[in-house]
Amino acid sequence: MLNPADAAFAQRLATLLPEGTLAPAEPRYLEEPRRRAVTPQALLARPRETAEVARIVSACAQARVGLIPWGGGTGLVLGQVQPEGPAPVILSLERMNRLRGLWPEENLMIVEAGMTLAEVQAAADGAGRLFPLSLASEGTARIGGNLATNAGGTAVLRYGNARELCLGVEAVLPDGSVLNGLTRLRKDNTGYDLKDLLIGSEGTLGVITAATLRLFPQPAATATALLAVIGPEAALELLTLAQIRTGGAVTTFELIHAQGLLFLDEAMPELRQPFADRPDWSVLIEIGLAPGLDPEVVMTGLYEAAEAGSLVRDGVIAQSGAQARALWDLREALPEGNRRIGAVVSHDISLPLSEIAEFLRRAGPVIAAIGPFRVNCFGHLGDGNLHYNVFPPKGGRAADHRDKAGSIQRAVHDLVHALGGSVSAEHGIGRLKTRDLEAYGDPAKLAAMRAIKAALDPAGIMNPGAVLAP
Amino acid sequence: MLNPADAAFAQRLATLLPEGTLAPAEPRYLEEPRRRAVTPQALLARPRETAEVARIVSACAQARVGLIPWGGGTGLVLGQVQPEGPAPVILSLERMNRLRGLWPEENLMIVEAGMTLAEVQAAADGAGRLFPLSLASEGTARIGGNLATNAGGTAVLRYGNARELCLGVEAVLPDGSVLNGLTRLRKDNTGYDLKDLLIGSEGTLGVITAATLRLFPQPAATATALLAVIGPEAALELLTLAQIRTGGAVTTFELIHAQGLLFLDEAMPELRQPFADRPDWSVLIEIGLAPGLDPEVVMTGLYEAAEAGSLVRDGVIAQSGAQARALWDLREALPEGNRRIGAVVSHDISLPLSEIAEFLRRAGPVIAAIGPFRVNCFGHLGDGNLHYNVFPPKGGRAADHRDKAGSIQRAVHDLVHALGGSVSAEHGIGRLKTRDLEAYGDPAKLAAMRAIKAALDPAGIMNPGAVLAP
Repeated sequence: MLNPADAAFAQRLATLLPEGTLAPAEPRYLEEPRRRAVTPQALLARPRETAEVARIVSACAQARVGLIPWGGGTGLVLGQVQPEGPAPVILSLERMNRLRGLWPEENLMIVEAGMTLAEVQAAADGAGRLFPLSLASEGTARIGGNLATNAGGTAVLRYGNARELCLGVEAVLPDGSVLNGLTRLRKDNTGYDLKDLLIGSEGTLGVITAATLRLFPQPAATATALLAVIGPEAALELLTLAQIRTGGAVTTFELIHAQGLLFLDEAMPELRQPFADRPDWSVLIEIGLAPGLDPEVVMTGLYEAAEAGSLVRDGVIAQSGAQARALWDLREALPEGNRRIGAVVSHDISLPLSEIAEFLRRAGPVIAAIGPFRVNCFGHLGDGNLHYNVFPPKGGRAADHRDKAGSIQRAVHDLVHALGGSVSAEHGIGRLKTRDLEAYGDPAKLAAMRAIKAALDPAGIMNPGAVLAP
Repeated sequence: MLNPADAAFAQRLATLLPEGTLAPAEPRYLEEPRRRAVTPQALLARPRETAEVARIVSACAQARVGLIPWGGGTGLVLGQVQPEGPAPVILSLERMNRLRGLWPEENLMIVEAGMTLAEVQAAADGAGRLFPLSLASEGTARIGGNLATNAGGTAVLRYGNARELCLGVEAVLPDGSVLNGLTRLRKDNTGYDLKDLLIGSEGTLGVITAATLRLFPQPAATATALLAVIGPEAALELLTLAQIRTGGAVTTFELIHAQGLLFLDEAMPELRQPFADRPDWSVLIEIGLAPGLDPEVVMTGLYEAAEAGSLVRDGVIAQSGAQARALWDLREALPEGNRRIGAVVSHDISLPLSEIAEFLRRAGPVIAAIGPFRVNCFGHLGDGNLHYNVFPPKGGRAADHRDKAGSIQRAVHDLVHALGGSVSAEHGIGRLKTRDLEAYGDPAKLAAMRAIKAALDPAGIMNPGAVLAP
């Protein structure tokens, strides 16, 4: 059993830290973006140095006080809020936001966990390099949280998740020891891969305090288009065609369903849309090109080949950066359109690429059998990652259908699982999906996870209740 | 303490398995390529199915009998031989060599651990795809061993190590349970990353029985050249230049020192060499090109830019596949040349890219202070991975200098460590480098590794003595 981070504990902890490190947590540290749960009370710690993090973790371990590592607070699965149990320490990394180094010739940088993702991108850009991780909340999300949750986003297809973009981490382990893993090495086969164990563990095995990140050459040119495709199968054939024609240079391949465009008509009528009639399925495609290739030539050639193969029926090829930006604005408006309509329930799923069409065929009737809902499906098709979100009938309100949310979600997740998919493609488990992990997770994997958690965090202080239910 | 795999144990185990699964181990299972150590005696198990592997591991766990997972036996750090201790079971995966599936449109395949790397490459090639892992022993090495040791090779720069090429594994854990992780998903954030924990653990945390591997489009064309560079710094500048000019399409960037070419003159005089005088430093560069780019134009443009920047002094650009093959033959002859001369001691090191030149400047005098040795340094410069091998003076024999091997190795490893490098870039720890891991490894990392090993393999049956010394 854990103890609360009460006044006596705060007082003892304060003697180990510079003045101003501790404070009662203000509401913004206790909430999460969709306001589905709050932490009732917590002690806020905002250290400036790794050694201070180590002292805090060590004190928590000795006193058996729970601790929630806190980045930008943008997570969507309740990994940053603890509605029940003794008051925890919220360990915010926001003051650890230094760029420790950037080596353009090595294509890497060392950043502290509290830099926002946008700051990390800007630092890379300033050195003529690309840090490709990109997602909607990048202005607020911090890189430590991106790594702890193995964040995905819109460039995974070409560059990988947060995991693939990280060469090493510095982290404070649950006993307060500091793992010094800030390697600048591309190859290092000396022992177990603790970096990847910490990445995606959502703060349950340690606190990432800094990381070595991979950088890339900036593409010489970018080709962007919005293409209306015949259907989901055609979209996948288009992806294969694009990869072969560009030598694997497709950066983004985002699927958009007509429902999303209709929601934008409803919720954001001021937004100009490129197609007069909203196509059933369209794809936002972006290709990062090597020098010597003309973006318009490459994209036009792709379009013509796709047309010859009856994969596309219409398309808009961006002729300028501004036109490309307008296409992206449309894609990025989709979540906001969803928010304004109000979803009954959302799903962050992934599927084997060749099962996506089958999933879409079978999921529609499954949901229709529960009620007359509208479905908006969009997402990172190139990664097999769909955001399959279910909305009330036109004119209805999500709140009036909440009683159906559980059965919709179960039906969708059962189908995803049956097709070899995942019920959390990029958002993680947090506290929202611990039951799903138990229901769908491999038993040997769960047993090994519990053994590792118990071995590294015997008191269970690190983000208690997240990932593995008590 | 472990028990031997004696006749009584063999008899009990035989009752659980199809006839012919067990046999006394022939010598080839007891040796390693450089004949530095042997396993005195072992029981050989050659299962055909994952369920049989699980029964073998389970029986070993119950009887506390040690077990060495065995691939192609090509490892270079004694991970496959156990000179001391009770006779183990050698668990060879060679009969588990089926291709379980290949999905070209998903760019992935599922293979059993016992396929040789060359067979895996051929299966991908047959489907018009590339599996890029490539190394000298690919005809013998098996993919399970490649994954267990996180193999590197010549295409890491572009495609990553074995780790980055694997999406998921099926493995038998030390308690005999089967981890079913053969996902066909690109994104799956449901729990801890056990795949990457098993990869690189060298058989000490479980036996990989099958894996999902990533495939890639085959490059439309390949540009290959051997360029004489001004020095190691210039080589790195050339790499940066090449990456920027090709949008990161450099597949291979191998450094070659004059000593390696002189060894070939000595040991393989029949081999034709492209440069009349042996340049101090040269680089074998290969670029995989997207459609629409002419390999000769790209490589000639790179050469001219490098010449303008005073980075190169001479070069041979392959005009045909045969010429490219001849340049590769030269690179691949280097290890054979080394073998014929006979090294006193070899090093598989990596360094931050911008420390390589500094290392080379400082290492020469350090070795000269120990004796009049010749050094051949070659390797995967793009990954910062050098094979820094030390040879007897001309006319001398390695055997006469073995007493110096320890002090040379210590001096090299100390210098590597001081510069932020690794003493095992791609070969792993095995039983050869457990002391190095203890000497140079991060204490928090070692403690966490021991905790994980004890949690997953409490009896210590999995590859006993490898990676973590008892």
